[in-house]
Amino acid sequence: MAPDALTDVRPRLRSAEEYRESLRDGRRVFYRGEAVADVTTHEVFRHAVEHASLDYRMAHDERYRELAVGPDGYSRYFTVPRTSDDLLARSALIEAATRAGKTLVVLIKEIGSDALFSLLALKSRLGEPYAGRIQRFYEHCRDGDLAVCVAQTDFKGDRGKGPSQQPNPDAYVRVVEERADGIVVRGAKVHTSVSVNANEMIVLPTRAMGPDDRDYAVAFALPLDTPGLKLVASPYLATKGKSAFEHPLSAERKMVETATLFDDVFVPSERVFMAGQHEHAGELARGFVEFHRFTAISYKLPLVDALVGAALLASRVNGLDRAGHVRDKLSWLISYAETLRALTHHAAERCTVVDGVAIPDTLLVNIAKLQFAQGLHTAFQHVQDIAGGLLVTYPAPEDLDHPEYGAALRRYLEAAGGASGDERLRVMNLISDLTAGEYGGYQAVLAVHAEGSIEAEKLTILAQYERERAIEYARWLAGIEEGEWPPSD
Amino acid sequence: MAPDALTDVRPRLRSAEEYRESLRDGRRVFYRGEAVADVTTHEVFRHAVEHASLDYRMAHDERYRELAVGPDGYSRYFTVPRTSDDLLARSALIEAATRAGKTLVVLIKEIGSDALFSLLALKSRLGEPYAGRIQRFYEHCRDGDLAVCVAQTDFKGDRGKGPSQQPNPDAYVRVVEERADGIVVRGAKVHTSVSVNANEMIVLPTRAMGPDDRDYAVAFALPLDTPGLKLVASPYLATKGKSAFEHPLSAERKMVETATLFDDVFVPSERVFMAGQHEHAGELARGFVEFHRFTAISYKLPLVDALVGAALLASRVNGLDRAGHVRDKLSWLISYAETLRALTHHAAERCTVVDGVAIPDTLLVNIAKLQFAQGLHTAFQHVQDIAGGLLVTYPAPEDLDHPEYGAALRRYLEAAGGASGDERLRVMNLISDLTAGEYGGYQAVLAVHAEGSIEAEKLTILAQYERERAIEYARWLAGIEEGEWPPSD
Amino acid sequence: MAPDALTDVRPRLRSAEEYRESLRDGRRVFYRGEAVADVTTHEVFRHAVEHASLDYRMAHDERYRELAVGPDGYSRYFTVPRTSDDLLARSALIEAATRAGKTLVVLIKEIGSDALFSLLALKSRLGEPYAGRIQRFYEHCRDGDLAVCVAQTDFKGDRGKGPSQQPNPDAYVRVVEERADGIVVRGAKVHTSVSVNANEMIVLPTRAMGPDDRDYAVAFALPLDTPGLKLVASPYLATKGKSAFEHPLSAERKMVETATLFDDVFVPSERVFMAGQHEHAGELARGFVEFHRFTAISYKLPLVDALVGAALLASRVNGLDRAGHVRDKLSWLISYAETLRALTHHAAERCTVVDGVAIPDTLLVNIAKLQFAQGLHTAFQHVQDIAGGLLVTYPAPEDLDHPEYGAALRRYLEAAGGASGDERLRVMNLISDLTAGEYGGYQAVLAVHAEGSIEAEKLTILAQYERERAIEYARWLAGIEEGEWPPSD
Amino acid sequence: MAPDALTDVRPRLRSAEEYRESLRDGRRVFYRGEAVADVTTHEVFRHAVEHASLDYRMAHDERYRELAVGPDGYSRYFTVPRTSDDLLARSALIEAATRAGKTLVVLIKEIGSDALFSLLALKSRLGEPYAGRIQRFYEHCRDGDLAVCVAQTDFKGDRGKGPSQQPNPDAYVRVVEERADGIVVRGAKVHTSVSVNANEMIVLPTRAMGPDDRDYAVAFALPLDTPGLKLVASPYLATKGKSAFEHPLSAERKMVETATLFDDVFVPSERVFMAGQHEHAGELARGFVEFHRFTAISYKLPLVDALVGAALLASRVNGLDRAGHVRDKLSWLISYAETLRALTHHAAERCTVVDGVAIPDTLLVNIAKLQFAQGLHTAFQHVQDIAGGLLVTYPAPEDLDHPEYGAALRRYLEAAGGASGDERLRVMNLISDLTAGEYGGYQAVLAVHAEGSIEAEKLTILAQYERERAIEYARWLAGIEEGEWPPSD
Repeated sequence: MAPDALTDVRPRLRSAEEYRESLRDGRRVFYRGEAVADVTTHEVFRHAVEHASLDYRMAHDERYRELAVGPDGYSRYFTVPRTSDDLLARSALIEAATRAGKTLVVLIKEIGSDALFSLLALKSRLGEPYAGRIQRFYEHCRDGDLAVCVAQTDFKGDRGKGPSQQPNPDAYVRVVEERADGIVVRGAKVHTSVSVNANEMIVLPTRAMGPDDRDYAVAFALPLDTPGLKLVASPYLATKGKSAFEHPLSAERKMVETATLFDDVFVPSERVFMAGQHEHAGELARGFVEFHRFTAISYKLPLVDALVGAALLASRVNGLDRAGHVRDKLSWLISYAETLRALTHHAAERCTVVDGVAIPDTLLVNIAKLQFAQGLHTAFQHVQDIAGGLLVTYPAPEDLDHPEYGAALRRYLEAAGGASGDERLRVMNLISDLTAGEYGGYQAVLAVHAEGSIEAEKLTILAQYERERAIEYARWLAGIEEGEWPPSD
Repeated sequence: MAPDALTDVRPRLRSAEEYRESLRDGRRVFYRGEAVADVTTHEVFRHAVEHASLDYRMAHDERYRELAVGPDGYSRYFTVPRTSDDLLARSALIEAATRAGKTLVVLIKEIGSDALFSLLALKSRLGEPYAGRIQRFYEHCRDGDLAVCVAQTDFKGDRGKGPSQQPNPDAYVRVVEERADGIVVRGAKVHTSVSVNANEMIVLPTRAMGPDDRDYAVAFALPLDTPGLKLVASPYLATKGKSAFEHPLSAERKMVETATLFDDVFVPSERVFMAGQHEHAGELARGFVEFHRFTAISYKLPLVDALVGAALLASRVNGLDRAGHVRDKLSWLISYAETLRALTHHAAERCTVVDGVAIPDTLLVNIAKLQFAQGLHTAFQHVQDIAGGLLVTYPAPEDLDHPEYGAALRRYLEAAGGASGDERLRVMNLISDLTAGEYGGYQAVLAVHAEGSIEAEKLTILAQYERERAIEYARWLAGIEEGEWPPSD
Repeated sequence: MAPDALTDVRPRLRSAEEYRESLRDGRRVFYRGEAVADVTTHEVFRHAVEHASLDYRMAHDERYRELAVGPDGYSRYFTVPRTSDDLLARSALIEAATRAGKTLVVLIKEIGSDALFSLLALKSRLGEPYAGRIQRFYEHCRDGDLAVCVAQTDFKGDRGKGPSQQPNPDAYVRVVEERADGIVVRGAKVHTSVSVNANEMIVLPTRAMGPDDRDYAVAFALPLDTPGLKLVASPYLATKGKSAFEHPLSAERKMVETATLFDDVFVPSERVFMAGQHEHAGELARGFVEFHRFTAISYKLPLVDALVGAALLASRVNGLDRAGHVRDKLSWLISYAETLRALTHHAAERCTVVDGVAIPDTLLVNIAKLQFAQGLHTAFQHVQDIAGGLLVTYPAPEDLDHPEYGAALRRYLEAAGGASGDERLRVMNLISDLTAGEYGGYQAVLAVHAEGSIEAEKLTILAQYERERAIEYARWLAGIEEGEWPPSD
Repeated sequence: MAPDALTDVRPRLRSAEEYRESLRDGRRVFYRGEAVADVTTHEVFRHAVEHASLDYRMAHDERYRELAVGPDGYSRYFTVPRTSDDLLARSALIEAATRAGKTLVVLIKEIGSDALFSLLALKSRLGEPYAGRIQRFYEHCRDGDLAVCVAQTDFKGDRGKGPSQQPNPDAYVRVVEERADGIVVRGAKVHTSVSVNANEMIVLPTRAMGPDDRDYAVAFALPLDTPGLKLVASPYLATKGKSAFEHPLSAERKMVETATLFDDVFVPSERVFMAGQHEHAGELARGFVEFHRFTAISYKLPLVDALVGAALLASRVNGLDRAGHVRDKLSWLISYAETLRALTHHAAERCTVVDGVAIPDTLLVNIAKLQFAQGLHTAFQHVQDIAGGLLVTYPAPEDLDHPEYGAALRRYLEAAGGASGDERLRVMNLISDLTAGEYGGYQAVLAVHAEGSIEAEKLTILAQYERERAIEYARWLAGIEEGEWPPSD
């Protein structure tokens, strides 16, 4: 197995500068109602571009090269996982990038490869001409070392109704015209991450569909400068005007989400991966989500590590290391973080190989994601508890340098732990940024909703569990089935 | 009961304009290292002044007059509670003001009167000349309808040591000189709320003290323009540049906390309420905190109501009213809010009258505060869960009006509940402001730390509970004590 | 109002002996498949009879008389509540009886009067002849000071279907024949408490019904010796062979539940309170449950007090008073217990008077019940945690007295708290009985299921909350409704 | 490495009958104050013997042989783990035995080998003559295929004081005489599991000790019939008189705990493994506990599986599969069980090899144990919730066969799930036994206390976590450390 290995061109690993340059095209991006001429220089988006370029810089960084470059010489993000070890390496790469990215996932290759893998895994069932197109598009992304985003979630309208039953026929993206050379699509997607600074956008269905939803069972890819494609960016969590002292995580880092509008966009046939195969829509939707949830639990690890580290650091600079309740909360935070790590790694180790693609254990991935999601708000509470009220009453950095009272203020801010006032304030600001401002809110809402909601994870857990095995044991315990365990048959 | 009632001057109820005018004095306020010339016109503080003036406007508003004005014609905030009904009325006033203040407590009279009541309750134990000064200062505030802030929390330094054992002798505010006509104090307080826009500041000790801490056992009051007093305001949660569409709660409302520096400030004797009576320091500290926690649980009610209301509204505009998990979370939120309300009201009903002052049941107040504090993060989680990812990916208001895609976007934002796109977005923005941005973070941190931390509340609960009664019952149940219940003695 | 007051016979307060004697009739009770000739002497049921007689003894006990006897001279259990104070007195009586009953509710009058009140409240809607029969039956119970049980829960069969759609037509109790002088009923009820030692059984419908369920919309009363009525008692938690040293709560106390079979039982017209009025079935079912939940939260108070007291006592005899984690768990337990108490009392204070009957606040009653039910298992965990492993490894009382090693064992069992080995063991046994054996299991299952399940309570909370008021506030906060709060209309 | 492999005698695998026979010796066992002549025929202990014999039967059972017999032909319980795979195999064996043992751990070899491994791991530090004795005793147990119990927990007395400071000098087991040929010990241990039916007892210290505690730093082994050794068995959870229909788990299965008294017991030198090396006492105590916690989390798996299976089965026989809240609780239970399984397996995979002995990851073992312990009570609550009130009101099996009403009762007990009344009742009885009676209480208390308490696990978690690594990351995030991540050094 490996068309990868057969290619004789030297694998390309773009530089951060090449990546940045590639974003200067005719894409139509709007911010607060205004068209953005160049995302690489825009006051907010440039931070998103800079953050995303981390995925490129790592491949050229000696410290990360082994992790960031696959055995075939391409970016490891595009390495199709075949074994547990491949999954562990992918997870480690995603974790390392997010760690270097100060707890904000980079995503610019992560999410796109998740979608590519789910498409590849569906090739044999979709058959030709789709299988070939998928393979070629995958190679196009890999060979070009492209930044790839994914638009999946539709606006949906009435949640009690399917795509074809909506009052607004465009509530889900659909095919409005089939031409000899391609299709025309209309509609909109919401929550599209990193679209303003990607090279390609993969569009996937968001749910299972029935025969009436045929027009909505559509998957395809587009370069970002495709006519008719409009990206309306959310103003949430703008970097604008923030100082790194006060917002050490979010002042200079950014991920952008857009409402993504398809105004009768033409997609050439070669880029259409599904059009009408409603019976595979759910499978594709779920397949992507499952790969993406494994990405998610991998990139949450630096965040939970940061919470533990920040709490430990705060307990130290506040002189509270010995307090019983602080130790109790610290042990909770450690258990939370390390359970997530263990579940993530174990999900890779217990993978299933389907058509040559290693899929992390779905049950464990969802349990990991659920436990992360259900615990984050409590984790914030504990970290805030250890940190103290200064989180929202801290003085400004300008105050520390004030000739009249700056020195006194610094001295008052010193505490038992031997940290200077400046250091203590930095710890407070880290925790404030991490848990009590827009960045913390962003992480909290992502925890609950990104890569599928808490309720979706519960349903998956219930569906994936081997229920009959457990019931059989209970029946034996209850004496309904007689004889010894295990039942001989 | 009432020296109050004997005064023959007509009670004064200042207008909002008079209040605002009173703030234009020589007070030294700093914001991001710069001196603020006039807090009433400063781009951030003017919102704090405007918010605070609500306490004045209500007294002149027919709809609130009965609640806002006491039976003696003064502001009800200054009505010393004598009965359960007084406490219930005070609680209702605080709740109403916060409700009209869009879930942000007004505090400008609430906190000051809490301190005044705790001083009044200590009069007989402090004796003269302190008792008389306290009474006169109380009347001064009441008669002048003044805005009064309280500075209590010291920076503390090493938490394992008492005030007099700190490496930094100024870690707690202390008397550095005793003069014939007053005292000179030095040190600093942190987390001082509403100080930039108050008329008077009451300074209280923050903890119990021993004989060595004599210099630190000090309580007094100062007008805000006292020489040597410096207020360094926190930059957290600035209103600057926010739109009310996106931040319906926090764009135009603000409470300011300061680091409060006492650079050898002279306090005339008449304004000194404690100086050296270390044996009463803990009592005064706790007395204020207990009154203030009752204020706190009263002003948390609009916040928890807003969470319930926002969740109900979100479930409706998202078309999720019928979903089982949504109903489960809604019932949790309702139980959370109404338990807090019941405990608050019941604490007033079960008050204890000490020296003529009605004190809400300490055990119940602390249980209420603790349950609020421990549940808020989970409440945020549930509300965010019901609301959806739009909380952090919403388009800007400018986008809704864009000629090219605004109308389409509005239509996509419509959902099953019959709400327009504009309305749905407003609901999302409310919840984003309430739970996922700086305002939500502010409320979350206040929940854990303001008016005493979670751990302080636990200790109070343990201390206040009638342990021996419970142990006696357990001993009887265990058969250690014989006979029938109740034991006859 | 008061036919009560007009009666010129002297109110009757039966003695415990009279009560016991009244149970020797032709009732058909089965225990483990065997007919029980006399419940007052049966090795298990006699403990149930003895426990139930507490309700009678209290009325003749000087210490309880004021609480146990109503202002009209009848047992207070039969006093129809007209005011908050009536509800508080009723709650206090139920609490006192359960406290004297060592945390096991007595129930023999409590549950019957709950049913009577719900029938009385429905009189005007049911009209004659039902109204008169209800009134007369109420007076019959009150005047005779009778022990009254209630059979409500049907076996149900398929929970997705209503009564008339069940494969087994007898899955819900129904009328199989209407005669001139009465009706004949068939079917069975489950979970019928205290039936083996009651004088009267009131039978109520268990849910709302539709027109097709007419035959199932039936309510009536029967003396326990009615032909065709069979009581099959559960063997769970038998007192048999238990020593009071090891099981201080459950060795000599018992409440009995039965499966209650109606084998074509004739009910004379005078005792039929509903027959076919399906439109009132749900109302009657809910009405009883709501009264009964108030009874429930009242009788849970001694249980939660016992948990707090036992935990305090265990921490003392184990020498753990000072341990931080123990104090944390104790404060949790106290908050749990006192929140339940506050909600219970506040529900009485906020009652609604309907047709002259005071109904405790339904929202608060259900919140109280839910919080109790959701917390009990955690409370058990905390108490077990403080108590230690001896809960399940304790030696027998016979060991303490063994000539060879008894004295040594007693000494080893002593701990820091100054308690003797015997005392420490008694504390362990109390907690073992309370949380870790059948009695604890009984209380745990009752917490979740008795008087309606956790889920039923959640639904009631959602239904009872004033949703529109909360939504209106959220709409104003969101800026959807303009102007000041409160909206003028 | 491997004296094991060099031995030329054929490894012995005793039969269950040989095991049973070996228990008929002069051991002094007391039950309720009476000496037990033969534990294999005693009405309670025979169930313990029968249950324990499972460990022997499995080695002769084809279905289990591969798991139960190590590669060297001895019982796998005695296979010293060298690799992750050894640990996984050991864990699988313990899980399988407990599963076949109906959720009750067998323990008769498990706990003893945990102690042997911890002694073997300490050999090099203890030096001779201890190292040789340990090795020989290990071989003695392995070669003889012996049942080995462990006595560790002392009665302790005042928990605030060390062994040598206790008012009662025997509160911890100690050496009272050193002879040329051995030592004489005095004192007592509590919570000693399976001692009545073991062949050997290993005695270990329970905590770290100081120089003054020299006499208490003692470890040794004894055959159970050693003079002066007395076993006082707990009466908790007696099998006596229980039917398997009503108590499918606990009617015929039993683990016995004893208070274990050492009345000046002589221990020959060859069996003394530590005497006075106080500096190693804590290490040995912890070493055993850590091995034993891994055993614990392995043997908890069938219990949590049983909870999931029972809940699934109950939801089916109650016809509640589709109910939203039931599915929510089921997904919680599955996550609980599978997180425990993943952590257990991952702890084996991440083992550390010390002196050739593979030690499961301590951090993960403790997190697993803690999460199990903290969740079990909630798990019980959810299972009880799904099962219903019948858990404590079920009729007796004799009732189902009653000629008069048995058939009717069976029919009423049928529910939607297609299960017969008999089956449904068996499911209820399983859950009642599992969660609501003495067996459930036993499991609940063991969860909190066995193999170390919840608080001990928290402390271990905090101690084992790589704190400095986390703090370093937080410092970099906060901007205290500059440069890129990871820091180059």
